[in-house]
Formats: sequence, C-alpha cells, structure tokens
Amino acid sequence: MISERMTRLASGGSAIRAMFEEGKRLAAQYGPENVYDFSIGNPYFAPPQAVSDAIVDIITNGDPMSVHGYPANAGFPSVRETVAQSLNRRFGTSYDSGNILMTVGAAGGLNVALCCLLNPGDEVICISPYFFEYNNYVANYGGRVVVVPASEAGGFVPDVDAIAAAVTPRTKAIILNNPNNPTGVVYPAGLLRRLSDALLAKGEEYGTVIYVISDEPYRELAYDGVEVPWMPGCMANCIVGYSWSKSLSLPGERIGYLVIPDDIAEGQLIYDAAVVANRMLGFVNAPSLMQLTVARCIDCYTDIALYDANRKLLYNGLHELGFECAYPAGAFYMWVKTPIDESEFVARAKSYNILLVPGSSFGTPGYVRLAYCVSGDMIKRSLGAFARLAADCGL
Amino acid sequence: MISERMTRLASGGSAIRAMFEEGKRLAAQYGPENVYDFSIGNPYFAPPQAVSDAIVDIITNGDPMSVHGYPANAGFPSVRETVAQSLNRRFGTSYDSGNILMTVGAAGGLNVALCCLLNPGDEVICISPYFFEYNNYVANYGGRVVVVPASEAGGFVPDVDAIAAAVTPRTKAIILNNPNNPTGVVYPAGLLRRLSDALLAKGEEYGTVIYVISDEPYRELAYDGVEVPWMPGCMANCIVGYSWSKSLSLPGERIGYLVIPDDIAEGQLIYDAAVVANRMLGFVNAPSLMQLTVARCIDCYTDIALYDANRKLLYNGLHELGFECAYPAGAFYMWVKTPIDESEFVARAKSYNILLVPGSSFGTPGYVRLAYCVSGDMIKRSLGAFARLAADCGL
Repeated sequence: MISERMTRLASGGSAIRAMFEEGKRLAAQYGPENVYDFSIGNPYFAPPQAVSDAIVDIITNGDPMSVHGYPANAGFPSVRETVAQSLNRRFGTSYDSGNILMTVGAAGGLNVALCCLLNPGDEVICISPYFFEYNNYVANYGGRVVVVPASEAGGFVPDVDAIAAAVTPRTKAIILNNPNNPTGVVYPAGLLRRLSDALLAKGEEYGTVIYVISDEPYRELAYDGVEVPWMPGCMANCIVGYSWSKSLSLPGERIGYLVIPDDIAEGQLIYDAAVVANRMLGFVNAPSLMQLTVARCIDCYTDIALYDANRKLLYNGLHELGFECAYPAGAFYMWVKTPIDESEFVARAKSYNILLVPGSSFGTPGYVRLAYCVSGDMIKRSLGAFARLAADCGL
Repeated sequence: MISERMTRLASGGSAIRAMFEEGKRLAAQYGPENVYDFSIGNPYFAPPQAVSDAIVDIITNGDPMSVHGYPANAGFPSVRETVAQSLNRRFGTSYDSGNILMTVGAAGGLNVALCCLLNPGDEVICISPYFFEYNNYVANYGGRVVVVPASEAGGFVPDVDAIAAAVTPRTKAIILNNPNNPTGVVYPAGLLRRLSDALLAKGEEYGTVIYVISDEPYRELAYDGVEVPWMPGCMANCIVGYSWSKSLSLPGERIGYLVIPDDIAEGQLIYDAAVVANRMLGFVNAPSLMQLTVARCIDCYTDIALYDANRKLLYNGLHELGFECAYPAGAFYMWVKTPIDESEFVARAKSYNILLVPGSSFGTPGYVRLAYCVSGDMIKRSLGAFARLAADCGL
C-alpha cells in the first residue's frame, strides 16, 4: 500500500547502523569500558578549536539575517569562491565560485550528481568492496549498480581491464572513493590515468560519456606523506563530492560541496542542473551557518596524528596476533581477512564484545571492516579480546 | 545524454527565484531604496535573541563530539522528545520521540514523506493555487500531481466536493498547506473535518487509504487570534511537516520535523521507512547543532506583531487604491486579483520597480502573490509606485 521499495528497505535496515545500536546495547549491559566497538566511522576527535571560535564569532558579530536567511541554492557566492581558491592553491586548478555547489554533506552531493546524470536504466559502476549506500543513491534516480571487484592481488585497487569489460552503452558513471572506505587504500595517480584512458576509449567506442563521481570525504586523511591525487587532474569528466564530516569532525552538520569542472562534457549544463536538483530534491541549500563556518576554517584540519597513532597501534596489534590485513594508507578503516567463515567470525567477535562490520556489507565477503576512529585506550583494551578471538580461530 | 528531466528543469528554473535575482539586478541599477521586491518569502525579521544565545551556549559549554557528531538518523532522541512534549502541551496530543523525525527543513520532510508513501503512478492531490515545488517533490518518487482548484467563491478554501470527485483508486495523498502560501488563508477546523470524512469515504469505496500531508511552515503565523487547527486532530491519516524557517527565521539552516502519529494507517511502518528514507535520500540527519538549538528555543517565536503591522499597512494601502484582495489571516502573503491580464500586470508592475510573483506560478492565473515579509519602510515607499500602477490599470 505504501511505497513497496521503502517497505522492503525499512525491514532491511543498515547493517552498520544496526551494529551501532548493538554497541550501545552491549555497553549498557557490560559497561562501555568492556565493549570494543569498531563498527562506525564517526570521527572520534573533536573539531579543531577554530570551528567553535568561528561559530561564536559569526553568531556574535554577524548579521543574523545573512547568517540564517536563504543563501542562493548553490550556496553563498563568497563561500564557494573561498572553496575554489583553496582548491586552486592546493591543486593548481583554476576553479571559481561557478564550479562549486555547496551541499548537504557528501551524501547530498552524490545524490545531486546522480540526479543530474542518470536516466532510468542507466548503469553506474561501483568497485567492490564499496559503501553500500551507493546502491540506494543510484536507485533513487532509476539507475542500476554494476559491481566490479577491486583487484585483490593488487591490494584492492580498481581493476582497469575488468572495469573496461563491464562498460556497456548504458554506463553513465563510475563511483570512486579515494582514500577508500572500507579498505583504507589510496589509489595512485598512474592507475587513475590508465583507468581514465580506458573509460574514454570505451566512451568513444559507444559514442557515450562515462562520468567519474569521486566521493572524497577522506581526502585529507592520508598517512606517511602519501599523496592523494586530485582526481579531476587524473581523470576526464570527473565530478568531485567532498564533505567536512571527517576533515573537521562535523558529520552531524551535513556540510560538503560538489566540484563541477568547466571542462567536463556538458559541464555548464550539469552545474545549472545541480543547482536545481539541490533545490527540488529537498535539500534547498547547504546549512547556512555551517557554510560560513567551513569557509572561515578552510585551512584547518583535524589532527591526523591522532588517527595515525591508532592506525599503528591496531595494525601492529592485529598483525602480531596473526590477522592478515594490508597496512592502510588513508581514511580510518582497516580491512581484515577473516581467518574463518565471515559470519561465524563476526559472531565470535561479538561474543568477545568486539563489534565490526562484515565485508559482505560492502559486497566482499571474507573480510571485516574495523573503523579505528576510536579512542587509543579502547584499542589497547581490545587487544586482549582480539587475542582470545585469534586463539578461538586457530591463529 | 545527461538526465533528460534535469536538462528540462535546468532550462526552466524557478519563477520565484528568477524574480529574486531580477530584484537584485534592479536594486543595483536604481538603488535598493527604489525597488519594491515582494517576490520571495525570506523572513525579514531576525531570529529571536534566544537562538543566538542557545548556539553560543551549546558551542561554549557543550561536548563538541555530541554537538557535531552523527546523531541517530531520526534525530537526537532528546530533541524529538522535546518536540513531542511541546506539541502535547499545545494540542493535547500524546506523542513521544517515536512519532517525531527531525528533517532537513520542511522540504526535506515532505520528500521523506512522499518517498515513503508513493509507488510509481500514484496520484497526489494539490489544491491550487499551491507551491509549485510540490510538482517536483511528487515527481521525485514517480507520482503524479492532480490539481483541484480551491473554491474561489469560498475564499480559496479546499472544495470538498471537487476533491472527492478527483479521488481515484490511485490517489495516495493530498498535500494541504495551512496557513496557506500563497493566499494567506487559514483553513477552519470544520471544513477540514468534512474533508477528512470525504476522503475516508472515498478510501472505503476504493479499498485504499488517502494520506494527508500537512505542510505547516506557517503554523505560528496567524493574526487576530485566528486559531490554526492541529491538522491530525481534524483529519485522519495525517502526517505533519514542519519547519522553523519562518517561526524562528532560520530558512538557511534547513531544520524541521515530521510528525507521524501512531494512529494513522501503517503508522509504525511509515515511521521506520521515514528513518531509512532520511538516510538514503542523502539527508542522513537534520543538521545537529540546529537540532539542539531549536530544542532550546522550543517556546520561542519570531514576533508576529511585526508581520501583522506589515499586513495591515499593505492591505489598507492596496485596498484604498482599488486592488481586490482578501485580508490574509495567516502566513505573510497577500493574494491580489490582477485588474488586467496577469502577465501584462506583472510587466507593468516591474516597470514601476515592483516585483511580485504571477499567480500562474502557483497554478492560478489572474492573481499575483505579494510577500510582505519585508521592511515596513519599503511598503510605505512602495505605495506611490502602486498608486501609479493602479492608475495605469484604470483603477
């Protein structure tokens, strides 16, 4: 009677969110100090002080009608210009406010981009393992996800040949997430250039354009000096979706942007369409106080050293126990091979009060994702439980 | 190549927004003091001081991780409970946090509600004149708007018989907007009860449920002690969408809620689906700082006396000049009959630097909408221009 799609989805729910709720239940039962919740990518460290300072200053000294009134649907022109100039300084680009659309987080931005690109029946390639919410975003506009597994042998980078083979005349876009959730891999520029060439060649073969949607909430989170390539610098027809959820620890505030470069196919039309889509999908505009706040904090980032310390602590701990996982170069996730059947492993982990997300929730069974955006203390306390889990699995 | 729907919409644009841009152009050309822009419903008066105080206090004394982290997709439980209790005090209801979903403004809330209700091909009744964005919202989920004109003779209230006659087996919902944009009419409780009975009877005839989606951003804006009925108290199967855009002058912040009462058909399923829809449409959650802020200001409202003074000033001025319009009881809009052809009237008004929105933008030609959420000074200054316009139209 009501929406059949939503009836189905409401009974399904999100595995990650369910785990999050389970974590709260276990914490109430065993005490929060005895539960090791690695399930959700909620930034653990507070926003930089500059964020609070900016908010208080804007509220105290700003004109409340400008601060809280309707900005343009695309966002405040001054904020968009600030974002553009920041990108230009960092990446040698030449964007201006007309290339930037302020969005309700990266999730809002991805929806706007897909709404602008897809006709019903169009295909969107996703590289597994991947954030499963992409399935819903693509379906929102009548599209269909085509899954291409990452190259496991290559360390979970995109498999250029497999992607090229998956392209059809209906392929409208590919979603890339770099640094990657859930693997923590950072895609290198050379690989991205090869992928771009392959997509251009396929597009030429079919007389189509294959857009790249680059989902980059983790752009500022790369370790050991690893450089995260500027995606439109490596890939043709690339639209970038960004969020300050992780880089400023503001996930609740829903603030991000799209970059729609001039030189992509139909760039101006896509930008104009994106402004309309932002309005008519019900976002209307990115929250206004937060637009002004992030513009003030354009050169601020959460201290990555804190996540880096967690990364080393958890990786070394798991590695010593015999777990098999790649050393992540970015984001705040670790992608661990399960030594036994995945669902059995997740269940046994839970019996030790360890919460993690099964790889099948990302389209790749046989692995689990650990989010290490948690306290270093919890990681330390968890290692005893992991040791028991390892023994239990015959490691 | 890109989305055909968005290509079409991007070239169309919003008449109201276009007028808004035209206003800025005229202001630059003739000086802002010589332009009379009645085109957009952007609150003119600042938020109550309590809003700024709450924000500064939350930022200064709150835990930044709770303030800016991910709340539940439905919103902070404490905020939802505060909203529920406030409604219970005012309307004698018995809601709790499980009936409230915090949304990205009313636009976000309406999209969530429609997403949960509609299957492709379903029909949604709108009463003209109406906010044309409803067309896009309904189309987002494959629905089709069926327009039923309001009773002009009855002062633009819903025409119960005409609505009943428009119901088909595919009718899934009716959107009501009370107090009304663009007419300023407040629907009386008795009429709403009769409409509810008619919808129930039609639903029984077809074996269907016809939901009422009540869009209420103007709920607190009613004058002369006119009571705005609590819609679920008058109408069966009613979901309420609210926004603080007008009542706290926060339109840029995108903060509102849905009320999904227990006693509507499939109430629990719709609530569960709405939580999922909030996530997967890309809203994820209502902006977190603003959730906490409105909860602190739950009993605060913009001073309606300021809008009331504008209402009297503009109504009396136009009435004396011979314009024909109903005295609005709510919202901050006046709905004026055009003494000559509508588009010619709008063009002549613009030649006197008066900007107003043609009634055809709301599906009802022969009228214009004036938004009087402007400075009283501007209204006073505009009356000379209106006098010349009246003379020009033979009044």
